[in-house]
Amino acid sequence: MSNAFDFQALFAKGLPAPAARWNGFPKYNFVGGHNDPDGIPVEGLIASATNALRRRGQTLATYNLDGGPLGDREMREFLAWKMKTYRGFDPSPDEILVTPGSNPALLLIFDVLINRGDTVIAEEFTYSGALGRMRARGATVVGARLDDQGLSADHLEELLAAQKKAGVRPKLIYTIPTIQNPTSTVMPVARRRAILDVSRKYGVPVLEDECYADLLWEQKWPPSMRAMEGSEHVIHVGSFSKYLSPSLRLGYIAAPWQLLSQMLAIKYDSGTSALPQMVVADFMKAHYDDHVAALKGRLKKKRDALVEALHEQFGASAEFAVPPGGIYLWLRLPEAVDTRKLAAPALAEGVAFNPGPEWAVDGPSASRYLRLCYAYPDEATIRDGVAKLAEVCHREFGVPVRSANVAR
Amino acid sequence: MSNAFDFQALFAKGLPAPAARWNGFPKYNFVGGHNDPDGIPVEGLIASATNALRRRGQTLATYNLDGGPLGDREMREFLAWKMKTYRGFDPSPDEILVTPGSNPALLLIFDVLINRGDTVIAEEFTYSGALGRMRARGATVVGARLDDQGLSADHLEELLAAQKKAGVRPKLIYTIPTIQNPTSTVMPVARRRAILDVSRKYGVPVLEDECYADLLWEQKWPPSMRAMEGSEHVIHVGSFSKYLSPSLRLGYIAAPWQLLSQMLAIKYDSGTSALPQMVVADFMKAHYDDHVAALKGRLKKKRDALVEALHEQFGASAEFAVPPGGIYLWLRLPEAVDTRKLAAPALAEGVAFNPGPEWAVDGPSASRYLRLCYAYPDEATIRDGVAKLAEVCHREFGVPVRSANVAR
Repeated sequence: MSNAFDFQALFAKGLPAPAARWNGFPKYNFVGGHNDPDGIPVEGLIASATNALRRRGQTLATYNLDGGPLGDREMREFLAWKMKTYRGFDPSPDEILVTPGSNPALLLIFDVLINRGDTVIAEEFTYSGALGRMRARGATVVGARLDDQGLSADHLEELLAAQKKAGVRPKLIYTIPTIQNPTSTVMPVARRRAILDVSRKYGVPVLEDECYADLLWEQKWPPSMRAMEGSEHVIHVGSFSKYLSPSLRLGYIAAPWQLLSQMLAIKYDSGTSALPQMVVADFMKAHYDDHVAALKGRLKKKRDALVEALHEQFGASAEFAVPPGGIYLWLRLPEAVDTRKLAAPALAEGVAFNPGPEWAVDGPSASRYLRLCYAYPDEATIRDGVAKLAEVCHREFGVPVRSANVAR
Repeated sequence: MSNAFDFQALFAKGLPAPAARWNGFPKYNFVGGHNDPDGIPVEGLIASATNALRRRGQTLATYNLDGGPLGDREMREFLAWKMKTYRGFDPSPDEILVTPGSNPALLLIFDVLINRGDTVIAEEFTYSGALGRMRARGATVVGARLDDQGLSADHLEELLAAQKKAGVRPKLIYTIPTIQNPTSTVMPVARRRAILDVSRKYGVPVLEDECYADLLWEQKWPPSMRAMEGSEHVIHVGSFSKYLSPSLRLGYIAAPWQLLSQMLAIKYDSGTSALPQMVVADFMKAHYDDHVAALKGRLKKKRDALVEALHEQFGASAEFAVPPGGIYLWLRLPEAVDTRKLAAPALAEGVAFNPGPEWAVDGPSASRYLRLCYAYPDEATIRDGVAKLAEVCHREFGVPVRSANVAR
C-alpha cells in the first residue's frame, strides 16, 4: 500500500517515541520473562482444549462465556481452590477477577486507587512495569529498603511515620513477598506479620504481587500475606505467565467486592479471552502439581547452570544471592560498571539483559545491577551467553579481570 | 473472608458508580452482541487447537509467541489474505496489529490521535462503546446524518466546512460503512467514494469499523473504503467477535506503520492472548468460507423470525429497515415511547434490549429507538420475547394498540 497521507500533525500531544520494528530474539536472551519452551505441557493442553471445547465450546458465542464480567466460572473455581490449597486463604470465586495477565490487574488497582499527586510505597528494587504504571498515573513512588528477607518492616515504618507527619496517607504498599522481582528474596512469616502490622497501623493497603510464588523450589511456601491474621487490607495478585505461559495472558486479582465492583466499572476490555481460561482451568484442575513440579525441575537446572557460569566467568566480580526459585537472578557487578552502558555493546554481541536502573525506584542506585532471566535459553546457551557477557564487560569496563581462570 | 477494612476513603476521585453483581442472562436476551451458540464450529476449533498446539505450542513459553508485538504471524498472514480476498486491499502483515477485540483497537486509535478538546465526527447513531471512549478521551463528538446509504457525504461536507471556518481540523471521522451499527445500512460504492473525497479534501482521517462486514448476506460485498483509490488516510478496523466469537477477544487494525508504531509505544497489554490467535488462524485459513456461509444462514433465519414477530406484534407501530446482514435490528416506535423508560419494566418481564439513546451522539434524538440483537435467542424465544415486549410497551405507553390481531 502506498502511504501518501502524513498523520504526524494529528498525533496527540505527549506521546512517547514510536516503537522500533521488531527484529527477532537475540541469540543469548536473558531479557524479560520468557520461559522454557520444553516446559509447555503441549499434549496436556491439547487434551484440555479438546475437553473444554467439547463440554462448553458453544458458550463462546456469548461475551464472558455467559458467566459474567469477573471471568470464567471454572477458572475462578480453580483459582479459589489453588489459593486455598497452596496460598492459605479461601476466597469465594466472586472475590476473584480474571485479567489478561497481571499487568492489567495492577493497572486496574492503580486506576481505582491512585490520583495524580498521590503517594505509593514500593520496594527499592521492583517490577519495572508496576513502577512505570504507578508513575503514569501521576503517583509519587517512595522506595522502601530491601534486605535478605525482602521488604524491611523497620524502614517501612519509618517511611509511613514520616508520611503521616507530613499529612500524607499513601494509597498502597506494593510488595512482591515470595521470590521478589528482581532480587528473588522470600519473605519469612515473621516479616510478613510485621509488614501487615505496620501497614494496618497506618491504614495503608498492601498490594501483594505473587506472580512467582508457584515456582519456589528449595523451601516450603510461606503462606501469602492475604492468608494471615489481620490481612483484610491486602489485595492479592497472581498470574499464569511465569508458571505456565506469558503469552496466554492470564492473571487475576483476589480482593473484596468493594474493590472489584469499582474495577469492573472502569474496565474497558469486555473480558479476558475465554479460550485460555477454559483450557487452562481444565488443565490445571488435573495437573497443577505435576506441571509445576516438572517445570521447577527444569528451571532449577538452568539456575544451576547460570550460577556456575557466573562463578566461572565473573569470579569475585559477580555478587548475587542464589535464587531459591523463579526465573531471575539479580546480579551486582563492580562499581565501575554502568549496566545501562553495558546493554548496547552486549546486545551487539547477541546478549540481552535488563539493566538494573529500570527495576529501581531510584534508577541510578542500581547502575551496577542487572537482571538475568534464565528460564528461556538452554543450558549451553546460558553458559555461552555468560562468557560473552563477561568478555564484553571486560572490554567495556575492565572487569572481570580474569575469567574461566584465564587472564583477559 | 471477613472484610473489616474500608477502602472507600482511598478510592481515586471521579470513579463511576461501582458495578452491580451479575445475575445471569435475561430470558429474552436481545442485548449486546451475543451470537448463536449453534454457530460455534466446536469440532473445527478442536481440530485447529490440536493442530496449532502440536505445531507450535512450545512458543507459548515466550511473550508474543516469539513473533513480536504486532501479534501472531500466522494470524496476521490470515488477516492479510482475508483483506486481499474479501475486502479488496492488500496490506503487509506488518501493517496489521492484532488486538484483544475491536474495542481495544478503537481505544488505541483514539489514544494516539485525540487530545482533550479535540473534535471528532461520528455517525448520528453509532456504536456506544466508541462514543463513550471518544468522550472519555475528552473529545467533542459531532454527529453526522445517516440516510439509507449510511453516512451522508453532503452533511459531512457541511460539518467539515463549518469546522474549518471555526479553525478546527477534526481528528477523525468514525464510520461503520458495511452493516452500520445500529441501523444496518450498507454504504454503496459511490457514497464511499464521496466520503473519501470530502474527508481527504479536509485532511481528516477516516476510521472505518468493519466489524460486521463478514455477515452481509443479501448482496455482494462492496469493497472496504481502504481498498479504494485515494484511501491512504483510512484506518481499517475489524473483529472476530461478530462472525466467530465475542469472548475470544480478537480484533485488528490495518494501518500504516507510522500509526502502528505509535500504538505499540503506548500499548500496555503485553500482547493479545496467543491461544485464540493460534487456533483461529489455523481454523480460518481452511474454513473461513464454509463457516461464514453456515453462520449467515442461521442468522438470516433468526432475522426473518424477528421481522415476522415485529410485524405481527407491533404492526404499524414498528418502523424499521430489514437488516441485510449482521446481528442487529434498529427499531423505531411511536413518538409516545421513551425506550429508556421501557427498559426496566421490560427487563422485569425478562426482555432485555439496548435503548436507542445509548447509541446516539445526541441521546434524546433516539428516545423512541431501540436496538435488538437477534443472534443469540432461538427463533421461538425471539417470537415470545417480541410478544412480551409488545405487551409491556402497550401497558406502559399505550402502543401498539393491537397486536397479533388482538386488541390489547
